[in-house]
Amino acid sequence: MARWEPGTAERLQAAALELFATRGYERTTATEIAQSVGLTERTFFRHFQDKREVLFHGQDRLSEAILDGVRGAPDDASPLDTVARALCALAPFFSPERRASSRTRKAVVDDNPALQERELRKLADLAVLLADTLRARGVGDLAATVAAQTGTAVFGVAFGRWVRDGEERGFAEVVTEVHGELLALAGRAAPVA
Amino acid sequence: MARWEPGTAERLQAAALELFATRGYERTTATEIAQSVGLTERTFFRHFQDKREVLFHGQDRLSEAILDGVRGAPDDASPLDTVARALCALAPFFSPERRASSRTRKAVVDDNPALQERELRKLADLAVLLADTLRARGVGDLAATVAAQTGTAVFGVAFGRWVRDGEERGFAEVVTEVHGELLALAGRAAPVA
Repeated sequence: MARWEPGTAERLQAAALELFATRGYERTTATEIAQSVGLTERTFFRHFQDKREVLFHGQDRLSEAILDGVRGAPDDASPLDTVARALCALAPFFSPERRASSRTRKAVVDDNPALQERELRKLADLAVLLADTLRARGVGDLAATVAAQTGTAVFGVAFGRWVRDGEERGFAEVVTEVHGELLALAGRAAPVA
Repeated sequence: MARWEPGTAERLQAAALELFATRGYERTTATEIAQSVGLTERTFFRHFQDKREVLFHGQDRLSEAILDGVRGAPDDASPLDTVARALCALAPFFSPERRASSRTRKAVVDDNPALQERELRKLADLAVLLADTLRARGVGDLAATVAAQTGTAVFGVAFGRWVRDGEERGFAEVVTEVHGELLALAGRAAPVA
């Protein structure tokens, strides 16, 4: 049995992105991904269930980081601030070095309805976990749901802007802008009579 | 050729929901749906592309109603209020008589990952259209995106509460509560430094 090599999953991921972007997602096989970096199909399947999974690898860790950020927030932090700060804390994941591959990944996902739906599902799952985590901190049921859903929307908008062509600001700066825009919009709004 | 009968789509929808709920979505065929109300498979496919479509029939009209509400809002209405009011205006769609079948439909969708993803996709598409509609009213790019995504989140939360067992309030009242909760949360939040 081959020895586990650190970094193998990351090498396979980079190779997969490259092939998906140049050849197309549908026309790329797991075997080709593995072979392009001198590995076997068997090694590929030791790391990933299927080629789709390559694109979503690491997202659970990302969700866990957001939830950890929420769990570690000061007790008196408001729910929306708590979520916004937890999102800002993702900046090391979404580093400047990551932006190019995040762009490539987004282009691949945007081009394939099934992948888009998987992406939407991941965000929806995150919102549910976020709400549970806020509730565990004592936030009321409706407030937790609204803060989690809104916070997930802020995450989606911020990520979308961060990967835009020409965008050079850091991830935390973009989250701050989007969160600030939400507060500004809410400040101009009134409860519906 | 059979004469077009008004209400046929609605009869097929009601029959489909009944069968999906009792027998299971996977185990119900289009032919069975049609036969259960004395119609032919051919009639079914004149109204719906496939059995999945039965569950999403009418949603485009719903989206269009929301967008119309936004288009018709007073010029000086804030983007979040505009969306909240457009959602409240859906109350005739989500009437008290509709609640039972909306509950059944939700249970069927919640039980099937592919249907859930379709549902998420429909909401995501609505958010994109909402943002475009707000931009067409002169709302800035980021504000339009944030208001549309947040408004769609409010819609999702409100709908989820409206169909809960035991909920008896009208749809507009639930939207008002959720929108108010968002404003209250935002009022307690501060821009991230």
